[in-house]
Amino acid sequence: MDNFKFHVYTEIFFGKGEIKNLPATLSKYGKNILFAYGGGSIKKNGIYDKVMSLLSEKFNVVEFANIEPNPSLDSVKRGVELCRTHAIDVILAVGGGSVIDCTKAVAAAFYYEGDPWDLVLDSRKITKALPIVTVLTMAGTGSEMNRGSVISNKDQKLKLGMGAPTTLPQATFIDPTYLYSLPPMQTAAGAADTFSHVLESYFKKGEDAFIQDKMSEAVMLTVIKYAPIALKDPENYAARANLAWASSLALNGLTGNGKSGAWSVHSIEHELSAYYDLTHGVGLAIIIPAWMKHILNEQSVDRFVSMGVNVFKISDQLDKMEIAKKAIEAMEQFFTSLGIPMKLSEVGVDEEKFELMAEKAVKYGALKHAYVPMTKEDVIQIYQLCK
Amino acid sequence: MDNFKFHVYTEIFFGKGEIKNLPATLSKYGKNILFAYGGGSIKKNGIYDKVMSLLSEKFNVVEFANIEPNPSLDSVKRGVELCRTHAIDVILAVGGGSVIDCTKAVAAAFYYEGDPWDLVLDSRKITKALPIVTVLTMAGTGSEMNRGSVISNKDQKLKLGMGAPTTLPQATFIDPTYLYSLPPMQTAAGAADTFSHVLESYFKKGEDAFIQDKMSEAVMLTVIKYAPIALKDPENYAARANLAWASSLALNGLTGNGKSGAWSVHSIEHELSAYYDLTHGVGLAIIIPAWMKHILNEQSVDRFVSMGVNVFKISDQLDKMEIAKKAIEAMEQFFTSLGIPMKLSEVGVDEEKFELMAEKAVKYGALKHAYVPMTKEDVIQIYQLCK
Repeated sequence: MDNFKFHVYTEIFFGKGEIKNLPATLSKYGKNILFAYGGGSIKKNGIYDKVMSLLSEKFNVVEFANIEPNPSLDSVKRGVELCRTHAIDVILAVGGGSVIDCTKAVAAAFYYEGDPWDLVLDSRKITKALPIVTVLTMAGTGSEMNRGSVISNKDQKLKLGMGAPTTLPQATFIDPTYLYSLPPMQTAAGAADTFSHVLESYFKKGEDAFIQDKMSEAVMLTVIKYAPIALKDPENYAARANLAWASSLALNGLTGNGKSGAWSVHSIEHELSAYYDLTHGVGLAIIIPAWMKHILNEQSVDRFVSMGVNVFKISDQLDKMEIAKKAIEAMEQFFTSLGIPMKLSEVGVDEEKFELMAEKAVKYGALKHAYVPMTKEDVIQIYQLCK
Repeated sequence: MDNFKFHVYTEIFFGKGEIKNLPATLSKYGKNILFAYGGGSIKKNGIYDKVMSLLSEKFNVVEFANIEPNPSLDSVKRGVELCRTHAIDVILAVGGGSVIDCTKAVAAAFYYEGDPWDLVLDSRKITKALPIVTVLTMAGTGSEMNRGSVISNKDQKLKLGMGAPTTLPQATFIDPTYLYSLPPMQTAAGAADTFSHVLESYFKKGEDAFIQDKMSEAVMLTVIKYAPIALKDPENYAARANLAWASSLALNGLTGNGKSGAWSVHSIEHELSAYYDLTHGVGLAIIIPAWMKHILNEQSVDRFVSMGVNVFKISDQLDKMEIAKKAIEAMEQFFTSLGIPMKLSEVGVDEEKFELMAEKAVKYGALKHAYVPMTKEDVIQIYQLCK
């Protein structure tokens, strides 16, 4: 097990009605709130009204609306401007990963004189950040309990990660009933995203991070059990609760710390959403089985066997390669069963940019440091498998 | 899943050599350090010298030595006195659960005018606490990453828990090599303690805390895999690392939150160590199989089946009761295999106080709220099974 640091100080308020603690939580930081949200779904499902009713009397609330999926540098700049104009004390992010990610960049850029994109390119430049409190309305990214943020630079067609110890949310409210009204594709994409995070951890380097791998399996089993239930019965509290908590735990360090090397799938996917504005979780679900097929070999087979036996409950009496192939099949079938389109052609992506995207994925994802190192040619082959 | 709050802000420095970050960590809080430790094993294994060499030049170090296993109220008072006399800024606890638990009580009592025992009897009286930094030298209690503390009042023969949000350690250093020199019985007792913590969570009330149960299974599997390795090969880094991190994760809320009701085994054991100064983990290992036998019935059997199939890998094709009984056997065999004496008679406990201890266990443990509620008679029967 590699050395690691773990410092996840986010205060989690989990469960139905916990939003009642929001005013007391925000008031630790001040009166001036930037209320960040996305395209307006929170106005339809009542969350906007609930938040406003809790805050409007005691706080000065400035709205920062219309944060787009795959949040852009332009939105970040708009948020920073609002924070400076209104002397914001604390940012309240109500949404999923896109809204929360955007506010992390805003919180850090508030204290930075130059172009916020500098902080995306080099997170070491982040010295301070405004405090962030989040209210989760979509589970999957895990952004509510980690420091990471992914920002898209639409001009440069780049989608890159940033983060610092100070960009971790101070507090997060997770009310599973807030997820009831999610469209099925958002539920499915979120489940795929959660699964992908622990899969990336599972397929990092490092032999003896046993407890981390068992935690990853715990998350995978949770997603496999509850994603189908949430799709069939969107108001099933147990399903929403387990998926939401799984999402937070999947990417807060518990499953990945103590292991080393680069992630594999996210970099390959980020290019797709940078060029085609694809839903991240959908892109991941498409890439994962192809990537698994591509990297399966005599050296990597044992990882597949662990996953096959412990997660997909494939008999450990079979031949290793057979278990591995069955695990890949099971993975593909699971995503398909969630209703996710599993071919790039179904989501409007053709071959035109495969080479360009592969080049960038290898460069920005440091894929030569992945569990099974990948070159540009490997990534092109993976894209080809997804056509 | 029940509502819960989760706020574990302890900064973890995990791995060989991470102690190098100790001075920078302590200096956040001030110059005057109370250096707390136990019976002196840290002087034999070099940890004392290491700490002193890191601190002696930059800090004023006041030693608080000879904290006993099952730390006493008297030790707490002695620590408070030292803190007041030397205007201590931060407490450095170097040890296992006893040392860390003692410092939590000291840290809280420092700000309390009355008898520190008041805080044990009613933790709501804890308003503030001195910051605590820990260096772990024995894995098992999980005290390094939670707010709880167990203090023994030798006069009243009481061993009770206390804790508040402010008694959580600010930072914890876990260097698996610091566990190499543990005597085998300490390694075994620590493993049993870790196991017992997730077992208590596993057998709390609450139907749909699936991900928590899977996390508990992750910890159980880790203990089962690595405790025998650490006993056979005390300097096996992977074994020490996995056991240590399992210990911290077992009792920081991850496995127990979202469920309700009282713990079962700890209260029954606490009476043993209150009256006989028994090693906590040894007492737990003795009680657990007897308690399992006692509470197994048609209503509780499904929990046993989950544990049997997922942890002890018993075939799910067997009859439920058969799986449950095999799980109990496997549990008992596991503790026996660690070299733990599995009868009360082997550790100097006779029947004399069974009734008295049972009465106290039911009262202070609120055992009527346990997964399977227990009366005084139930507890006596459990003690009888352990004779």
